[in-house]
Amino acid sequence: MKSVKLFTPASVANVSCGFDVLGFCLDPVGDDMTIRKSDEKGIRITKITGQDLPLDVHQNVAGVAAMALLEANPSEYGFEIEINKRIKAGSGIGSSAASSAGAVFGINHLLGSPYTNHELIDFAMQGEKLASGSAHADNVSPVLLGGFTLVRSIAPMDVIKLPTPKELVAVIIHPKIELKTSHARAILKKTVTLKSAIQQWGNLGALVSGLYSDNYDLISRSLVDEIIEPYRAMLIPEFAKLKEVSMNAGALGCGISGSGPSVYALTKGFENAENVGQAMREVMQKLGIDFEVHISKINEEGIKILSEE
Amino acid sequence: MKSVKLFTPASVANVSCGFDVLGFCLDPVGDDMTIRKSDEKGIRITKITGQDLPLDVHQNVAGVAAMALLEANPSEYGFEIEINKRIKAGSGIGSSAASSAGAVFGINHLLGSPYTNHELIDFAMQGEKLASGSAHADNVSPVLLGGFTLVRSIAPMDVIKLPTPKELVAVIIHPKIELKTSHARAILKKTVTLKSAIQQWGNLGALVSGLYSDNYDLISRSLVDEIIEPYRAMLIPEFAKLKEVSMNAGALGCGISGSGPSVYALTKGFENAENVGQAMREVMQKLGIDFEVHISKINEEGIKILSEE
Repeated sequence: MKSVKLFTPASVANVSCGFDVLGFCLDPVGDDMTIRKSDEKGIRITKITGQDLPLDVHQNVAGVAAMALLEANPSEYGFEIEINKRIKAGSGIGSSAASSAGAVFGINHLLGSPYTNHELIDFAMQGEKLASGSAHADNVSPVLLGGFTLVRSIAPMDVIKLPTPKELVAVIIHPKIELKTSHARAILKKTVTLKSAIQQWGNLGALVSGLYSDNYDLISRSLVDEIIEPYRAMLIPEFAKLKEVSMNAGALGCGISGSGPSVYALTKGFENAENVGQAMREVMQKLGIDFEVHISKINEEGIKILSEE
Repeated sequence: MKSVKLFTPASVANVSCGFDVLGFCLDPVGDDMTIRKSDEKGIRITKITGQDLPLDVHQNVAGVAAMALLEANPSEYGFEIEINKRIKAGSGIGSSAASSAGAVFGINHLLGSPYTNHELIDFAMQGEKLASGSAHADNVSPVLLGGFTLVRSIAPMDVIKLPTPKELVAVIIHPKIELKTSHARAILKKTVTLKSAIQQWGNLGALVSGLYSDNYDLISRSLVDEIIEPYRAMLIPEFAKLKEVSMNAGALGCGISGSGPSVYALTKGFENAENVGQAMREVMQKLGIDFEVHISKINEEGIKILSEE
């Protein structure tokens, strides 16, 4: 095997009550990546289309993640990475995670899979560290494992794949303003009240229960975040309005995707998702900011091999 | 039907990572209560054996809870409550919750069950308020619903019954010193770091996942509390040692039961529970404080009718 072409999906992290621990994988939205084995050792990023991102392996999350894998598992081969980016950097739907996860998944595959996808999370997270200034695994985990994932701990790495109720659909609206994860992190307080923390872990526990028991009402009641959202909402134009119209249109919940500016909603079924998407669209159209809306089933498979040679 | 005799079980709240939201129900440990319908309106506590507790309905949790129910659902009858207390007040295994839950369960039963057990939680919680100075439902919920319960919210009341892995066994050691819940609350800080809160909700989410998936290793990894335990541990003689010997003896986890002084451990199977119990016993024997050890399967049924006339 000399090369592999991948679909590396976008993902939604945090999911309201699961700040820094929860994420889920999207379906039609994502990048294509091609990884090629080469006789020349080391990692090279040979081509990036779709966006203006650095080819320097030390400056690109895919390069950093790939090097972390090769450092742990030295190879006689080198690898070339080609990325067709369709997820915009800074959009809040895991652009850097898709590249980080894709690089390590592709190289691992070409090496004969010395690592499981669970084990690849740690390497992919090294790329995330470059992107956001802090190591977090809540986007790379759903990309590598599919579905909903819960990061119990990153040191040692302990990630659990959660079940996905079959009718759950995600709606994403991406207002085309750039919001750096590092800025969205800087706005957060370092402490929270015990009272609000208790509320948050009650909601997260309930959400996990709702995912296991296909209880859409419980999922809906649990999608609450009074710790992070009040701060980050200020960075997103018309967030309150987007949330209000989504809930009025029947969404189970609505919140900030990752660190924003994308906003996610979860719905029961595609018909409701279309209504929620339309309601969000109307808010953004009035505002005059460029935007995109994605409607996606939860991608239970995660990252996918498109072809190999 | 004129009277009902009940077994009202003890319970463990908090369960390490689930402060104020999680609890489970014990089996052989509990009180007996008899509730009798009477032609004289109102609530009377006619007899308490086993412990020196107030008969005044305004000063006794059972009375307060019972009056809350009758206020919402006025009756032409009154009710007499008789309690044989075997759970010591201030032991940390839900003594007040057993009485509160028993009172409302018994009266509801004699009234022809106008409320579900879920709905009774709110009334029982009024009794808890008297006992601890703040309303919490993490002990009354497992008593009324059985098994493990998660209190997502108390206003509005939203309690979820979680599944119980079949081989889970609880070990309780009760050092006979009194520790008031209100004092154990006063020692807590009003704020926590965001970092430790994230760790806690990651662990609680993982514990809920472990309960649904019968994953004993995951349950074990999740039974961590770095927020409350470090403070309350100071109030419990030899807590660190009890935890150390339990874990060395193979417990899945060990922590403070409720607000203490009882310490709980969870094990896989009864044989392991006996070993853990013995290890804890040896620590307490050296210390010279009076104590009791209980070994209990998780009581999935909860409160139980023993007889009725």
